[in-house]
Amino acid sequence: MDSFEFMSPTKFILDKDADQLCGQEIRKISDNVLFVHYGDGYMYKSGLHGRIMDALEAAGVTCYELPGVEPNPKVGLVREGIGLCREHQIGCVLAVGGGSVIDTAKAVALGAKYDGDVWDFYSKKAVPTEALPVGTVMTLPATGSEGSNGSVLNNPETGESADVMADFLRPAFTLMNPDLTLTIPRRQTVFGIVDMFSHVLERYFSSSVNVNLTDYMCEGVMKAILVNARALMENMDDYNARAEFMWTAIVAHNGLLAAGRNQDWATHTIGAQLSAQYNAVHGSTLSVLFPCWAKYVYKENIPRFVQFANRVFDVEVDFYDQEKTALEGIRRLKEFFLSMGAPVTLKEIGVETDEKFRKMAEDACRFGSIGGLKSLNADDVEAIYRMAQ
Amino acid sequence: MDSFEFMSPTKFILDKDADQLCGQEIRKISDNVLFVHYGDGYMYKSGLHGRIMDALEAAGVTCYELPGVEPNPKVGLVREGIGLCREHQIGCVLAVGGGSVIDTAKAVALGAKYDGDVWDFYSKKAVPTEALPVGTVMTLPATGSEGSNGSVLNNPETGESADVMADFLRPAFTLMNPDLTLTIPRRQTVFGIVDMFSHVLERYFSSSVNVNLTDYMCEGVMKAILVNARALMENMDDYNARAEFMWTAIVAHNGLLAAGRNQDWATHTIGAQLSAQYNAVHGSTLSVLFPCWAKYVYKENIPRFVQFANRVFDVEVDFYDQEKTALEGIRRLKEFFLSMGAPVTLKEIGVETDEKFRKMAEDACRFGSIGGLKSLNADDVEAIYRMAQ
Repeated sequence: MDSFEFMSPTKFILDKDADQLCGQEIRKISDNVLFVHYGDGYMYKSGLHGRIMDALEAAGVTCYELPGVEPNPKVGLVREGIGLCREHQIGCVLAVGGGSVIDTAKAVALGAKYDGDVWDFYSKKAVPTEALPVGTVMTLPATGSEGSNGSVLNNPETGESADVMADFLRPAFTLMNPDLTLTIPRRQTVFGIVDMFSHVLERYFSSSVNVNLTDYMCEGVMKAILVNARALMENMDDYNARAEFMWTAIVAHNGLLAAGRNQDWATHTIGAQLSAQYNAVHGSTLSVLFPCWAKYVYKENIPRFVQFANRVFDVEVDFYDQEKTALEGIRRLKEFFLSMGAPVTLKEIGVETDEKFRKMAEDACRFGSIGGLKSLNADDVEAIYRMAQ
Repeated sequence: MDSFEFMSPTKFILDKDADQLCGQEIRKISDNVLFVHYGDGYMYKSGLHGRIMDALEAAGVTCYELPGVEPNPKVGLVREGIGLCREHQIGCVLAVGGGSVIDTAKAVALGAKYDGDVWDFYSKKAVPTEALPVGTVMTLPATGSEGSNGSVLNNPETGESADVMADFLRPAFTLMNPDLTLTIPRRQTVFGIVDMFSHVLERYFSSSVNVNLTDYMCEGVMKAILVNARALMENMDDYNARAEFMWTAIVAHNGLLAAGRNQDWATHTIGAQLSAQYNAVHGSTLSVLFPCWAKYVYKENIPRFVQFANRVFDVEVDFYDQEKTALEGIRRLKEFFLSMGAPVTLKEIGVETDEKFRKMAEDACRFGSIGGLKSLNADDVEAIYRMAQ
């Protein structure tokens, strides 16, 4: 077990009326707020926009709005939000939506306390030291940003996707009303499930030893995802499965499952290039890449892949041919993604040629080699893109 | 899945030098501190007392001391600590020790902000609203108080054992140096393991349904305890098992495993009477009572006990006689306690007669019936004491 530091100060509330608490929770922090959201039809037609505005008004909170967040959120809108915060001396940011909205809100919160350009933090030119408090009303469980210390942003000018991590970016509160997730379309639901499963995988495929507790916890969370995914694929209106996924997304990514172990994260980094270059949906990059990554690296730590196959996917261990068991576990992982209709090849997500493979591989490794289980350089990354064709 | 609210703002640090960070962590909060500890030989002979004092001094923190905490901590010493806090206007309490020290520190922190007598909170005469910040240096993983919202105290004048729970009682920081736990004697180590296992059991034996995530997580934590207990019983110097237990004690009791499910806690309440009347060690009351409680209530929810037997103790399910499987799981639980040399009868912990059974049963139910899986009245509790003879 490695040394670690872990904190997750966020107040989490799951309840059928949880979103209505945003006014009173914001009021404890500030008398005004920047309300960040997608600004799409759903926000208005579902009545959610009105309910949030009413809750803020009832609590006496002055509200400024930043609608228009897109998937793979862009730094441009963030700069707009920072301008609003400065102009109106806003004391708190409220994200109502999924990971893109929350990551945007965190970036705004960061930039509002900084005189330079917010991208400095993402390009590692500046080290973040403070941010405005962020609260969230979760509507799309997937990235776990509602409980995490990270924010991922895209810069269309440079074609980069980059992140910032700091404990003060963890939300002050996260409100979860499972009813809000009942109408998430099947496709987005699946990508959310792939994302949270991958967040556990990135921590599970560790080279740290003597990590029984976090191993068993990771395996438990993955098994719960398998059970709830099966329930939800049969009935998209399953309230309980929806509610469990809201909490699973957070547990998978608030850092708890990584306490005392190193992590991998190569697949996320390799996938981020597909989002930056092809605007591919984050979850889709992971269902395509994870099985390929696993096949590329499994020989590095066969016992870990055997344990994964046996404990997560109930594969009977062939003790005379453990490599076979390891590969069967990887096959089952791919099969799980396929069973939900998630893509497992680059073609399915619109990457038809290999022309950008080299550039993406080099960009993925621009800060050095990546991955914890096996260290990957640009050649390795390019090979994984080729496996995924 | 039930509605829930969960927060665990404590900053946790596990490292071989973690205890040395107490000075700088306190300094972020206050320039003086009340240092609460056992004041036993170990504190001084091991050099821990000196190292803590040095770290506080190096950080420029003025230190006042409250030594003398006993197992099953008493309200008398707490009142003394509150007097010191008032006299010196102390801004923070540092607990260096195990659950008794931390519970004492939390009680002092509570009382220091209250004009009346601190026992008012434990007797439910007053509702707690604030407390001084508490930091901890963990030396005896067991109760999980270093990450929990609770404090348990004993009042020798009334013979009562009672608790207070409030999120603001969660420690600001908890520092874990696994080396400090290597010298814990076998007996105390075992009671600590029983205590943390029981904290998971109290949450696992729930009547809530559709709780796959927390079920699998509880089962994972219990399996990790079984594996690490086996390792430690073979070699009490196993650093990794010791380190895992430090973190396990917290995960088992910070509330994470109860998110979205009701809990039981009858066994803890029944056991607390044995501590109050016979000064029995907390962990020993649990190894005696848990198998008895389980045998008394299992018919209330046979599927849950079958799942426990199968998933935690790998009992092959007899689908034609599931009650048999449930009982085999309970037998394995008792066998686990026995395998570590933990007591499983009241006689072994010095309770020779049944003379106090009725009074203890009535005291256990003084605020009403107890238990979540099955609601127990004084007659039920008395029956469980009789089963444990």
